[in-house]
Amino acid sequence: MNSDAAALAAWKRAAACAAAELVTDGMIVGIGTGSTAVFAIEALASRMRAGLRFLGIPSSDRSAALATSLGIPLTTFADHPRIDLTIDGADEVERGTLNLIKGHGGALLHEKIVASASHRLAIIVDATKLVDRLADHSVVPVEVVNFGWEATGGRLEALGATVTLRGTPEGTAYCTDSGNRILDCRFQSIPDPAALEEQINRLVGVVECGLFVGLTDVVFIGDAAGVTRLERSLQVPADR
Amino acid sequence: MNSDAAALAAWKRAAACAAAELVTDGMIVGIGTGSTAVFAIEALASRMRAGLRFLGIPSSDRSAALATSLGIPLTTFADHPRIDLTIDGADEVERGTLNLIKGHGGALLHEKIVASASHRLAIIVDATKLVDRLADHSVVPVEVVNFGWEATGGRLEALGATVTLRGTPEGTAYCTDSGNRILDCRFQSIPDPAALEEQINRLVGVVECGLFVGLTDVVFIGDAAGVTRLERSLQVPADR
Repeated sequence: MNSDAAALAAWKRAAACAAAELVTDGMIVGIGTGSTAVFAIEALASRMRAGLRFLGIPSSDRSAALATSLGIPLTTFADHPRIDLTIDGADEVERGTLNLIKGHGGALLHEKIVASASHRLAIIVDATKLVDRLADHSVVPVEVVNFGWEATGGRLEALGATVTLRGTPEGTAYCTDSGNRILDCRFQSIPDPAALEEQINRLVGVVECGLFVGLTDVVFIGDAAGVTRLERSLQVPADR
Repeated sequence: MNSDAAALAAWKRAAACAAAELVTDGMIVGIGTGSTAVFAIEALASRMRAGLRFLGIPSSDRSAALATSLGIPLTTFADHPRIDLTIDGADEVERGTLNLIKGHGGALLHEKIVASASHRLAIIVDATKLVDRLADHSVVPVEVVNFGWEATGGRLEALGATVTLRGTPEGTAYCTDSGNRILDCRFQSIPDPAALEEQINRLVGVVECGLFVGLTDVVFIGDAAGVTRLERSLQVPADR
């Protein structure tokens, strides 16, 4: 790990610890997926060892495995369809709105299901993930059904996207936890993320997209100066 | 087969033969799934033996197997993302609008992908499938992601549905060709099918629903008197 990577890791860890402080006794906690969520799982495990009682609902097998290895008790949607708080990372956070792009790690569908079932969503990022406008740096990952994905890709292009089928290092198509494909969609700009999210999700063959609009309640941003907390303005309508 | 079933089969076969007459040389033909689509595949095979040349894109493995066994040449979305004509059955056809409920056979997702990629959609039914208002007799099947399906079911209930997880005779959850579950949703009435379809598809965890709105171009209805053909009125906007 070079020093830049070490600094980013320290920033993420600090943000994760701050977010874990939101958990109180008896909560059902949604657990995200990815390199930043790993720090959240570790921070939750640390609070558990200090006596906090809660149950986790993980958004992926790998987060479930890590949580279990650290002794965090897990539950399921069948027993707890309503989650109190979810802690997860993001690929981009739009400064003004707290809207997100997620899914570069491939778990966007399960992450969105967990986030949408949550009373509150806390996002943890290092400062490099903050953007002025969504899609400034990132593609929008879209999870699509294998069957007819070429036709679905054509419909995404008709919305203005440049579409790339996500591959693996082995040269095969990437396969999500639900057995679908990911089409990485580059948009020149996204003037209305809520409208675009709806247009994408309405397409036949699309399972879900990586735009998370109106879901975030609080963002913890780690940087060299410490952790900054951004709350969603009460003026932004909650669309969930 | 009792006489009622024999009559229904004869009506379906007559409707299927009429629909197969729409195929012309060189077409890419979408092939549906289900007990009625079987007659369409047989009618297409018969026309092929009489010299018609076309390529089929089947919406399920079982339709692919039947088509192949009858010698129908098949192609894929990769080679032909645009289909000229799809022939498929339906569970309900609304008389005035030609809107459909499909998916009681479990293949709604692939059928909708094929139908949506088609220039024209021809539906074949026996006369018992015609209704004055959608959902008069049928539930609306909704294909949902396994992960968190209980939470997704709760969101469907919030739309007014009575939700039942579709099972198998063996007592397990039904699994679609794409590995998802089906929630059968009973609605008291559906005053605006297009709006309901959009509300359902917007829900996180929903892959697709069995409402087919604005997709049908022509319906062939078989009954004791023969085959009736209903065309979509030119006044109905094409929403695809």
